[in-house]
Amino acid sequence: MNYKDLNTPIRTIMTPGPVEVDPRVLRAMATPVVGQFDPAFTQIMNEVMDMLRILFKTKNKWCFPVDGTSRSGIEAMLASVIRPGDRVLVPVYGRFGHLLMEICERYGAEVETIYTEWGTVFDPAEIVQKMSEMKPDIVALVHAETSTGCMQPLEEIGRACRSQDVLFIVDAVASVGGADVRVDEWCIDGLIAGTQKCLSVPSGMAPLTYNDRIEERIDSRKKVERGIATEAELQSQNPLFIRSNYFDLGMLQEYWGPRRLNHHTEATSMLYALREGLRLVLEEGLENRFARHVFHEKALVSGIKAMGLDLFGDPDRKLPTVTCIHVPGGIDADSVRGMLLREFGIEIASSFGPLHGKIWRIGTMGFSCRRENILAVLGAFEAVLIRHGVHVNRGEALQAALDYYTQPVLKDPVEA
Amino acid sequence: MNYKDLNTPIRTIMTPGPVEVDPRVLRAMATPVVGQFDPAFTQIMNEVMDMLRILFKTKNKWCFPVDGTSRSGIEAMLASVIRPGDRVLVPVYGRFGHLLMEICERYGAEVETIYTEWGTVFDPAEIVQKMSEMKPDIVALVHAETSTGCMQPLEEIGRACRSQDVLFIVDAVASVGGADVRVDEWCIDGLIAGTQKCLSVPSGMAPLTYNDRIEERIDSRKKVERGIATEAELQSQNPLFIRSNYFDLGMLQEYWGPRRLNHHTEATSMLYALREGLRLVLEEGLENRFARHVFHEKALVSGIKAMGLDLFGDPDRKLPTVTCIHVPGGIDADSVRGMLLREFGIEIASSFGPLHGKIWRIGTMGFSCRRENILAVLGAFEAVLIRHGVHVNRGEALQAALDYYTQPVLKDPVEA
Repeated sequence: MNYKDLNTPIRTIMTPGPVEVDPRVLRAMATPVVGQFDPAFTQIMNEVMDMLRILFKTKNKWCFPVDGTSRSGIEAMLASVIRPGDRVLVPVYGRFGHLLMEICERYGAEVETIYTEWGTVFDPAEIVQKMSEMKPDIVALVHAETSTGCMQPLEEIGRACRSQDVLFIVDAVASVGGADVRVDEWCIDGLIAGTQKCLSVPSGMAPLTYNDRIEERIDSRKKVERGIATEAELQSQNPLFIRSNYFDLGMLQEYWGPRRLNHHTEATSMLYALREGLRLVLEEGLENRFARHVFHEKALVSGIKAMGLDLFGDPDRKLPTVTCIHVPGGIDADSVRGMLLREFGIEIASSFGPLHGKIWRIGTMGFSCRRENILAVLGAFEAVLIRHGVHVNRGEALQAALDYYTQPVLKDPVEA
Repeated sequence: MNYKDLNTPIRTIMTPGPVEVDPRVLRAMATPVVGQFDPAFTQIMNEVMDMLRILFKTKNKWCFPVDGTSRSGIEAMLASVIRPGDRVLVPVYGRFGHLLMEICERYGAEVETIYTEWGTVFDPAEIVQKMSEMKPDIVALVHAETSTGCMQPLEEIGRACRSQDVLFIVDAVASVGGADVRVDEWCIDGLIAGTQKCLSVPSGMAPLTYNDRIEERIDSRKKVERGIATEAELQSQNPLFIRSNYFDLGMLQEYWGPRRLNHHTEATSMLYALREGLRLVLEEGLENRFARHVFHEKALVSGIKAMGLDLFGDPDRKLPTVTCIHVPGGIDADSVRGMLLREFGIEIASSFGPLHGKIWRIGTMGFSCRRENILAVLGAFEAVLIRHGVHVNRGEALQAALDYYTQPVLKDPVEA
């Protein structure tokens, strides 16, 4: 046997995910499993649905995770809603807008895109204007674009969608649990979250929610598997059936709903983890949690600026959970990241496509978003930049962050 | 806060999955996470691929899990292979054959099915005969049909597929880790396993493997996401692209291969669990493990027969990991299961569709497949049947099982 006992290094993870996991969540995963139809387990399923309703600020009946990583939830939502030929508007302001577009194309949508420069977001009026020209069936939009560190205001677009009877689907993977998301108030019809970002649960589940406007669409495309369907269900099946079995939200509904019709075998330990992660969110309180994210983000930003580095992206639309930093000219961005990991055990991120090597991204998400991590990354980052020949204001980053943290007026929301 | 600390009952799980998880696997999941591109993590990914090659008895380059439950692996395989209009032969001998058929239909295949009575399997010659009439592009077949407790011999069918240049795809979710599966020797082109059955890892991952015949097909359908694709990749994209993003094995390959191109965020804790589960399998040894499954299955069957109950299905094709029992006339099968769970904390299963209420299914899989569990289920089952008015041979089941276990000649493979 060449495979040793699992023995991973302890990292300070300051990326936009996956981030550090609260020890309580890790412990929950070590709980012995129960069967998927055990009443002890279906109660846990129901509790998770209840807690997701609070997290999403919604009265929606359907709030449950898809068993897969965040993009599995995005695909489940789009696969279940998009009928071939549906017209979908995807405003793109970063990599994850491209992902929405790409999934829509795979499911046979006629996709139109509008673009804005990476590092900015759309004026909502521009999207509303495009909607009135294009008359889409669906608008699919990223709330928090981790690739650029920007956050798109949604409320005005949501209201326009509702008044024009357009379905509004939002990827909120990088914001839910770290920044305010109001599903009902913002007229969001379908929304997808992730576990491994601000919820600080390991990757592998994608909580989502949708309202009766989407449920109606899904019900009209119902398909029940031969082998578990009744005769009447077999007869009534629709040619517009959803093109994926695993991502057919109609079947997931029947499994998460009172009928408990077998679909997949729910991922027991991951659901334990999600339940504990949601409990932690609710114990902290949503508004406290959002305030904590902004609080530590401000400390990080003060340190980065004091070092003399420039932030990337529109500061008015900056995500509180991701901070993007321009890589100074001539510096090998990946070498800086490598040294941070190797010498300090601290992970920060690069970005994708045109931004790879041009910016660094530092996440301040969930359990990773705490004082000692902010201070650790600032101190280490400065040292590594100096080793790479960058001219920084030596010693200033930590002084700025400590000034911020020791201001008598401000209180760390967690400690308050 | 109405949501209490997670506090699940300890169950004896004797279903065909999810089954009990070895404490070592549970502990592995409580390990702090690392980032998905951390060298410490990519090494774990590579180790899992290596161990899967041993498990699957294959030299295939591609052996990795899909992040989702077993059916996500089945769908990933079929979605990646089936081009619209491909002719797929699905021989159906239980519910999970229907699932294969259903997924093939969703991806636009022209599906032909042949059926055999539930509780039996196909004479391989019948499938080979049908192949020569139908000339399929693909044969998709279940190896171990948990819904009926039967196992289909594959080797002859695999050889016929290879000689006729037909792709042979096998759902081995219920056999891998509990019964012999020889991917290369049996000419299987693509095979899917599950975690929550004989591997005794929680549900949520679907390990799979495929050879260069399937890789070639996948490569011919390549699509790289805008936002991470090179210009040349964007130009060369194929109209036969795979209809799912999440299940596009071409993209998963690029993530699991040396290029490490970001697709999803690998489910960290589940991969820790899978690694530990595979380590346990290799420590025990594949052949020892298969022998252990048969050893305890025989004890269970001796007890069930001694009670005077009848087994369902062809005894020559019985799965060693699932034992199906006819429900005696007039007995409410679900009431028996309910009492077993409520009073004894023991879970056994019903079946699906036409077999629901007609048979019980007792699993003997992975960590659940051990002496004390066999004895616990036999004793409790007898007591509950008596409470339900079934005439059984009182006291005989445990005596038969103890006779079996205390035979001087036989050795428990685990204790040997």
